[in-house]
Amino acid sequence: MSEPTTTDRLALRARELDAGDELTRLRERFVLDGPDDLDGRDDLDGVDGVGGTVYLDGNSLGALPVTVADRVDDVVRRQWGRLRIRSWEESGWWTAPERIGDRIARLVGAAAGQIVVGDSTSVNIFKALVAAVRMARGADGDARDEIVVDATTFPTDGYIAESAARMTGCSLRPVEPGEVPGALGARTAAVLLNHVDYRSGRLHDLPGLTAAVHAAGAVVVWDLCHSAGALPVGLDAHGVDLAVGCTYKYLNGGPGSPAYLYVRRDLQDRFDSPLPGWNSHVEPFGMRSAYEAAPGAVRGRVGTPDILSMLALDAALDVWDGVGIDAVRAKSLALTDFFLQCVEAYADPGRVTCVTPRRPEERGSQIALRCPDAGDVMKHLIGRGVVGDFRHPDVLRFGFTPLYTGFTDAWRAARVLGEVLDEVAGQSRGEARA
Amino acid sequence: MSEPTTTDRLALRARELDAGDELTRLRERFVLDGPDDLDGRDDLDGVDGVGGTVYLDGNSLGALPVTVADRVDDVVRRQWGRLRIRSWEESGWWTAPERIGDRIARLVGAAAGQIVVGDSTSVNIFKALVAAVRMARGADGDARDEIVVDATTFPTDGYIAESAARMTGCSLRPVEPGEVPGALGARTAAVLLNHVDYRSGRLHDLPGLTAAVHAAGAVVVWDLCHSAGALPVGLDAHGVDLAVGCTYKYLNGGPGSPAYLYVRRDLQDRFDSPLPGWNSHVEPFGMRSAYEAAPGAVRGRVGTPDILSMLALDAALDVWDGVGIDAVRAKSLALTDFFLQCVEAYADPGRVTCVTPRRPEERGSQIALRCPDAGDVMKHLIGRGVVGDFRHPDVLRFGFTPLYTGFTDAWRAARVLGEVLDEVAGQSRGEARA
Repeated sequence: MSEPTTTDRLALRARELDAGDELTRLRERFVLDGPDDLDGRDDLDGVDGVGGTVYLDGNSLGALPVTVADRVDDVVRRQWGRLRIRSWEESGWWTAPERIGDRIARLVGAAAGQIVVGDSTSVNIFKALVAAVRMARGADGDARDEIVVDATTFPTDGYIAESAARMTGCSLRPVEPGEVPGALGARTAAVLLNHVDYRSGRLHDLPGLTAAVHAAGAVVVWDLCHSAGALPVGLDAHGVDLAVGCTYKYLNGGPGSPAYLYVRRDLQDRFDSPLPGWNSHVEPFGMRSAYEAAPGAVRGRVGTPDILSMLALDAALDVWDGVGIDAVRAKSLALTDFFLQCVEAYADPGRVTCVTPRRPEERGSQIALRCPDAGDVMKHLIGRGVVGDFRHPDVLRFGFTPLYTGFTDAWRAARVLGEVLDEVAGQSRGEARA
Repeated sequence: MSEPTTTDRLALRARELDAGDELTRLRERFVLDGPDDLDGRDDLDGVDGVGGTVYLDGNSLGALPVTVADRVDDVVRRQWGRLRIRSWEESGWWTAPERIGDRIARLVGAAAGQIVVGDSTSVNIFKALVAAVRMARGADGDARDEIVVDATTFPTDGYIAESAARMTGCSLRPVEPGEVPGALGARTAAVLLNHVDYRSGRLHDLPGLTAAVHAAGAVVVWDLCHSAGALPVGLDAHGVDLAVGCTYKYLNGGPGSPAYLYVRRDLQDRFDSPLPGWNSHVEPFGMRSAYEAAPGAVRGRVGTPDILSMLALDAALDVWDGVGIDAVRAKSLALTDFFLQCVEAYADPGRVTCVTPRRPEERGSQIALRCPDAGDVMKHLIGRGVVGDFRHPDVLRFGFTPLYTGFTDAWRAARVLGEVLDEVAGQSRGEARA
């Protein structure tokens, strides 16, 4: 009898890990590809249950929860089609932004009454950042005139921060997150940071940075797009001021589903929105010409909420029933650890560099690998049924959603990656010789 | 043989008008109540084909077009559920805001390439108004520092205008639309006006007011919420600068469906958005830290578009295939004329006052009636299957959507209104005596 190969050993290990995973049962809450969706793309063998797409792009667009389609159909056909205007009350449309906000609250460590859902992440960053500057100035009367922004941020945060700075008479100062504490001072009004970096997958020190911002008398806004639903955030526990996040990544709300805004309870009275739409009025149907902000999280609302997308998100959040975020985090770290272990086994040394920190406390739920020809490599991977994404100029991103990604998925992705890296390198060499 | 009663004559006239209406065939493009949805609410007789709800609240939430539910189901199950991230390209998600904008363009008299769909009306008003102030200042270098806003506007326009003024160093001046020309001057930067007043249904003089604003060197923003889809707007023909509108009223896009923003082609290069999200970047996937606005209407985009709601709207716009807005306008005026004629026949003189101008050129597609106990009257009407809405403090609104509202609907609504007005007046007198 021959020795097991590396592939065999890791494949068996993946099966063991899947067998011991208490979250495996959650996979059935999602629509994932069965063998009939293979389109002949899977040429692997030797491991039972391998097949279909390995979807590692849930950090861009989460997979479809099984409950969503029927729920949306009911919203369209019955709530809109039959009840029509009555649904604003009878189907709970009007209060959906707060109600669904409370469901998200549990996942990011916030008590109820502090989150509203609506608008895009970009629009919410604008609300939060302008309001943060106003709070910071109101608090101590200082002429605080600087917004500090994560220099490595997802671009929209930077663009919106620039606009917020321009419209509040601030200057914008991009700073690497690790150097933020040293950059804070009496001029700092607000600081916009990402909990997890969209490209590298690095997890920033939310408690420590929040404390540093507070020590400088400034107000912090956290962007949770790449952390909410993947790891514990602890907004209340760490005294975060304001936070925003999207709902279409680890929260699986669907393409472009509405974002959310967190305003800490004791700051809500001072939340002075640059977008004071009628939905945030204390008496929206009073049709009063003078604006008077509603109390509470409702103050973060603007215009008429987008009901179809919002109620799709509501249905999508059902997948979290009975799921604790700590268990999700534990599995996430185990998955990304195991994936890296497999990548090291299957990829030629030096062919890829891991951009994501190896230390668990510095890692979100994605692995970013840098390599030459990354765009081509990702095309080949997708052609082979392993779906991650490419981020300009040279990064392969693989997102691990613990609710529906298993260890065998991680194994298969790494093994296919190893093969693709060889192929693409071979092609490049071939082209160079031609 | 006895003389026909008033009721008979008007009922017969309604039938004649319906028989001669070329748009009647469009009714089948919508989900409307059949007799099985009556819930015993219809106690009228004598006229064939009368039954179900008379839905006169399409100026708040348009009825469901029949194509929407299946289309949304496909978006959820196949595009999101199966194709997932690939749909951003393969299902045309990424370009949907412009593509659907071009479909709306035809209905508001705009050539393609000037409208994008996304965000709420409130958010779009903010973009448009801030951009308008910047344009006005850029154009002639003057220190223009005043925003003029319709004093009778839907509240959110006023609230947002106040914020736009505050953030651009302007003062806000509320002016009755008819008095706008006299209020314009060298200080005027931007003017925000409603094409049709949400409460009274009054149609304002878009060509004349636009010309007056231009003569003062200022920039005009029109809110088309209550006109688009009900009457010709002629954005290009009248040289409108910027316009916004919702899509859930006469465009039937569904609850909270995304709004749209029109920026006239020759102004697009000067459209300097206060919400420069990554979706309006010239190279959104370049992930560049410096913002550079895209050319064209795309510049009005902000964050990730809300795909479910946007594609529901896309499906809803199919009802306009082969429909000209002039025919819609002709029927709208005929419907509202006939409704008023019936109200005069059935309501006690002096019991209601028509707030909507009688002259066709000053009327949108709704009739607003003022009466005591308007809130109670509307409750009773809805209980009897005639759905309009109540606007604080004393206005009954009846919206007429020519695509699915017939003359018999108008007749029935007026007849039930006459009865309800008697009942509610009787109750009030009874209470006064008690």
